Amino acid sequence: MITIALDAMGSDQAPRPDVEGALLAAREYDLRVLLVGQPAAIRAELARHGKRNASVEVVVASDVITMRDPPMQAYRKKKESSAHVAARLVRDGKAAALVSAGNTGAVMAVARFTLGMLPSVARPALAAPFPTARGGACVLIDVGANVDSRPAHLVQFAVMGEIYYRAIFGTRRPRVALLSIGEEEMKGNELVRETFNRLKETPIHFTGNVEGRDVFAGNVDVIVCDGFIGNIALKISEGLAQHIATLLKQELKRTVTAQLGAVLSRSAFIEFKKRTDYSEYGGVPLLGVKSPTVIGHGRSNANAIKNAIRVAAELVRGRVNEKIEQELRLPAVRAAV
Amino acid sequence: MITIALDAMGSDQAPRPDVEGALLAAREYDLRVLLVGQPAAIRAELARHGKRNASVEVVVASDVITMRDPPMQAYRKKKESSAHVAARLVRDGKAAALVSAGNTGAVMAVARFTLGMLPSVARPALAAPFPTARGGACVLIDVGANVDSRPAHLVQFAVMGEIYYRAIFGTRRPRVALLSIGEEEMKGNELVRETFNRLKETPIHFTGNVEGRDVFAGNVDVIVCDGFIGNIALKISEGLAQHIATLLKQELKRTVTAQLGAVLSRSAFIEFKKRTDYSEYGGVPLLGVKSPTVIGHGRSNANAIKNAIRVAAELVRGRVNEKIEQELRLPAVRAAV
Repeated sequence: MITIALDAMGSDQAPRPDVEGALLAAREYDLRVLLVGQPAAIRAELARHGKRNASVEVVVASDVITMRDPPMQAYRKKKESSAHVAARLVRDGKAAALVSAGNTGAVMAVARFTLGMLPSVARPALAAPFPTARGGACVLIDVGANVDSRPAHLVQFAVMGEIYYRAIFGTRRPRVALLSIGEEEMKGNELVRETFNRLKETPIHFTGNVEGRDVFAGNVDVIVCDGFIGNIALKISEGLAQHIATLLKQELKRTVTAQLGAVLSRSAFIEFKKRTDYSEYGGVPLLGVKSPTVIGHGRSNANAIKNAIRVAAELVRGRVNEKIEQELRLPAVRAAV
Repeated sequence: MITIALDAMGSDQAPRPDVEGALLAAREYDLRVLLVGQPAAIRAELARHGKRNASVEVVVASDVITMRDPPMQAYRKKKESSAHVAARLVRDGKAAALVSAGNTGAVMAVARFTLGMLPSVARPALAAPFPTARGGACVLIDVGANVDSRPAHLVQFAVMGEIYYRAIFGTRRPRVALLSIGEEEMKGNELVRETFNRLKETPIHFTGNVEGRDVFAGNVDVIVCDGFIGNIALKISEGLAQHIATLLKQELKRTVTAQLGAVLSRSAFIEFKKRTDYSEYGGVPLLGVKSPTVIGHGRSNANAIKNAIRVAAELVRGRVNEKIEQELRLPAVRAAV
């Protein structure tokens, strides 16, 4: 049975959604989850869910990293935080993967320095799934683990993103593209042009450049970019989705007829919400570190936590890290890095 | 009376929306518009709108640049295109500004090389307005005139974007921010950190770094970024907005109740559409070239063309180019560039 170490103090509403998500995941996916954090608060949440569950276990951590803590400072000063303790459980073989919906920067630092990097990986990368118009997912890598990446880094991101996509979405040969500002080979900036030449030489199914609009089109599976750009793409999408939802709500409340219409269309709105619900993807894996690590959104609900744990378990089952290490050692890949 | 040279063969549906937009603009804003392109097609459109209008005039251009033409090749080989002829009318003082909804890359090349650059500007920049949650607009500059910008270029973009914002949106002292992946001064990539230090030293009302989500929040007026990033931000926003609209339509059609609901909420959807309608902004000015130039979206309708012409006229009236030249010569700005 796979054991996951969950930072139970991670999410904005912690430990409530964290504990509930862990219970759901343990039951649904037949996993063992270590709930790491402040025992009184965690036990109070467990009590709300009734009878004891043998597949979750509380592990004490005396400190908590907040969303406002500067990442490197939190990593250095809060060695007894729930994120640190959870990462050490993974490092020491007590759990196979780390999950946290805490401060992204701090969790990245804790994971990277506590677990270490895979020997062939130069830099870790965050791989974020976006829902597409065709009903599937498109993974953008990197969405902010690094900035100022060089071509060799982007080639490694492509390899890692492709393996992750195969493991999680079951696609045999994911289509990998490079994020640019035009489809032609010559379009883009220096980084993209050089990476384009190198990706052509790898065994990856590289389909060329795509534009920002293709993230949601569903015509490619993995889109590679520098973390500065990926992070802005992710945040602007979150901002716009929220903006549209707010505007629509305002308009639907303005007149009685519109209100009535909104009530009648309620099922459509619920279905729409489901199809655009990021919590189904659960979290964003930090690829390149020695053990599978999944970072959830601070706003995670129980469903998002459950899915983050599911993704972590799939990374373990799919032996994603072994595959990353193997493929990065292929001569054709090493030549391109 | 201000005269605008319109590339009447620009938009995807040209010359229909282009001609109709020109007639609307001429009437509504008391302008003269030169309709440049293939006379038979333009006259056929004019005829559809009834009696002759003294404020529009047809100017013959024998060639047309298509959306598929590679920009630099179109610039070099199609010297008699409607975009070229329109730009020469501006260069020769027959019109005060250039408007085209044609191939963005080609129109940029034509404008830049036919009109020339303002003496103090190192690189031109495209300034795209985004609708915000507070009902105003937030301008992102640059959205793709350049890639691989250096800090000095971003400082110039900030100055140009700020002057444009004042002229078009009437704000006295626009708040200017830098697009990054965290608000703290130390966050971001090398380019952003260096630009941050320089912007602090200018007379601009620089409010610091913002994240992708802030583009729609309305807490700043002008957001500065490299054109590679700005173009991806623009395209991903267009892609997501379209994706959400499609999903919502699908869901609203799925059941009879939802369909009825949608009919009752129709006014809300129309109002919502108005509030998110990019055509109200009309087009994106290419700042830094010697005469005001506004580039519309290929999908422009008549309303978008009308507004692109309005923006061009406001750039002329607001003496935006003189102000750009003046402010870039201020010692505090020159020191930061």
